[in-house]
Amino acid sequence: MTSIQLADHLRVTDDFRLEDIDPASTPGFDGGKRAGNALAHAEDDVVTELQERMFAQARVGGDAPSLLLVLQGMDTAGKGGILRHVIGSVDPQGVQIASFKAPTEEERRHDFLWRIERRLPESGMIGVFDRSHYEDVLIQRVRQFAPPEEIERRYGAIVDFERELVAAGTAVIKVMLHISKDEQADRLARRLARPDKHWKYEPGDIDERMLWDDYQAAYELALRRTSIDEAPWYCVPANRKWYARLAVKELLLGALRELDPQWPEAGYDVDVERRRLAESR
Amino acid sequence: MTSIQLADHLRVTDDFRLEDIDPASTPGFDGGKRAGNALAHAEDDVVTELQERMFAQARVGGDAPSLLLVLQGMDTAGKGGILRHVIGSVDPQGVQIASFKAPTEEERRHDFLWRIERRLPESGMIGVFDRSHYEDVLIQRVRQFAPPEEIERRYGAIVDFERELVAAGTAVIKVMLHISKDEQADRLARRLARPDKHWKYEPGDIDERMLWDDYQAAYELALRRTSIDEAPWYCVPANRKWYARLAVKELLLGALRELDPQWPEAGYDVDVERRRLAESR
Repeated sequence: MTSIQLADHLRVTDDFRLEDIDPASTPGFDGGKRAGNALAHAEDDVVTELQERMFAQARVGGDAPSLLLVLQGMDTAGKGGILRHVIGSVDPQGVQIASFKAPTEEERRHDFLWRIERRLPESGMIGVFDRSHYEDVLIQRVRQFAPPEEIERRYGAIVDFERELVAAGTAVIKVMLHISKDEQADRLARRLARPDKHWKYEPGDIDERMLWDDYQAAYELALRRTSIDEAPWYCVPANRKWYARLAVKELLLGALRELDPQWPEAGYDVDVERRRLAESR
Repeated sequence: MTSIQLADHLRVTDDFRLEDIDPASTPGFDGGKRAGNALAHAEDDVVTELQERMFAQARVGGDAPSLLLVLQGMDTAGKGGILRHVIGSVDPQGVQIASFKAPTEEERRHDFLWRIERRLPESGMIGVFDRSHYEDVLIQRVRQFAPPEEIERRYGAIVDFERELVAAGTAVIKVMLHISKDEQADRLARRLARPDKHWKYEPGDIDERMLWDDYQAAYELALRRTSIDEAPWYCVPANRKWYARLAVKELLLGALRELDPQWPEAGYDVDVERRRLAESR
């Protein structure tokens, strides 16, 4: 099974316009849901092995890389589904998930990157941010929780921060799950229709939805300003959940392949240890 | 599919003797590997739903329970396989894994439970300890890292600690994966035979293996002294990996069923929200 090259289709460039991206499209993939799921599933073993190699490098004390996947999107965009279905196929020992909610009082007393730095993946690990420091230039911009000049400063601070992160050995993939306003309404309606989904809904979701266009503008600007070669943004059409999951798995796989982790060499004499083991029987 | 009752077969009682447990046996289950794997897999959906209910309770700010699974066993006993195959089938958003290695200098300056308390699962979460505070009465006893009276004190401290934990809403399941000395030799030999497994082996594994009988005695004593009604120990024969995985899944499922989490009620007026959503289209 040869891998497909979705990344090139999804990558955010300087002239990126969100309205150019159809949330129902499947860029770079001609097949339908069944073929998409089959392809995603077929690559599980490769992801698993690459992840384990990276983890192994760190375990023996080597200079192992790590990988950070940042997930952003409007409510119902499918972040939870990515975590469950894409990240859920990776060995949980090698995964560190951080969910960022509204900052606590303590977090607010520090710079916005303070709480982010504390949740970065350790060496050898795949870290996933369910929301992230980007909230500080999204909701904070739309809701005017911070003054414009502070938001402006943050774009630069984020770029500097991520460049340092990459230089220190963490690959960074940033994904915006892009759904349409209609699709969001359908998904919210489904949550309201099922008692076992009521907990996923809160009245504030509608308040945010009323600001849809402002959020789209804030996303477009944030993605343009912070999509750098070292840590690019990918805008993933997410009306079709199967496509979004396939795309994120491909991006993860591509990043792992680029890191190209190798099984570490034994730090001991294998023959000596075989003998010791035989003697211990 | 009706669930089987493995727990009663595996539970550690006051007169527990480790040598009475055949590591190659499959207590409470008559079938073979294929049937065992099928049963384990068939119960994934139930585990997933119960876990999600617990998670949902916590998410809406309710008084949600949590669950702590403690995994102990000699090297190669299969802790990693349990994490990958049993815990790996649960939504990773609801799982917090803590691996305990030799304590750091800072950890050594505190009481042995200090580092444990900081890694307990949050409300609504399933926590898994890959090794645990039991190392402090196992390796520390065998290697005499702590004086006998301190080890003696720790049994009581552990029981007090776990009773409080349970009283505060955390279900506790403790599992010893029990393999035979021969099986360990076979597994270590396999690690030495494959370059992609070399990282899992270290020469110290043989040093520990030479103290096999001391470890078995330390396990037997620790399990007897700390298997309480509120937080029982289960000794799971683990020469057959499929059985160990089935057993731990059954124990997890049983504990979740006992917690009996319910979908939280909506904290808002569903009809009002439907109307607001309709108006936002």
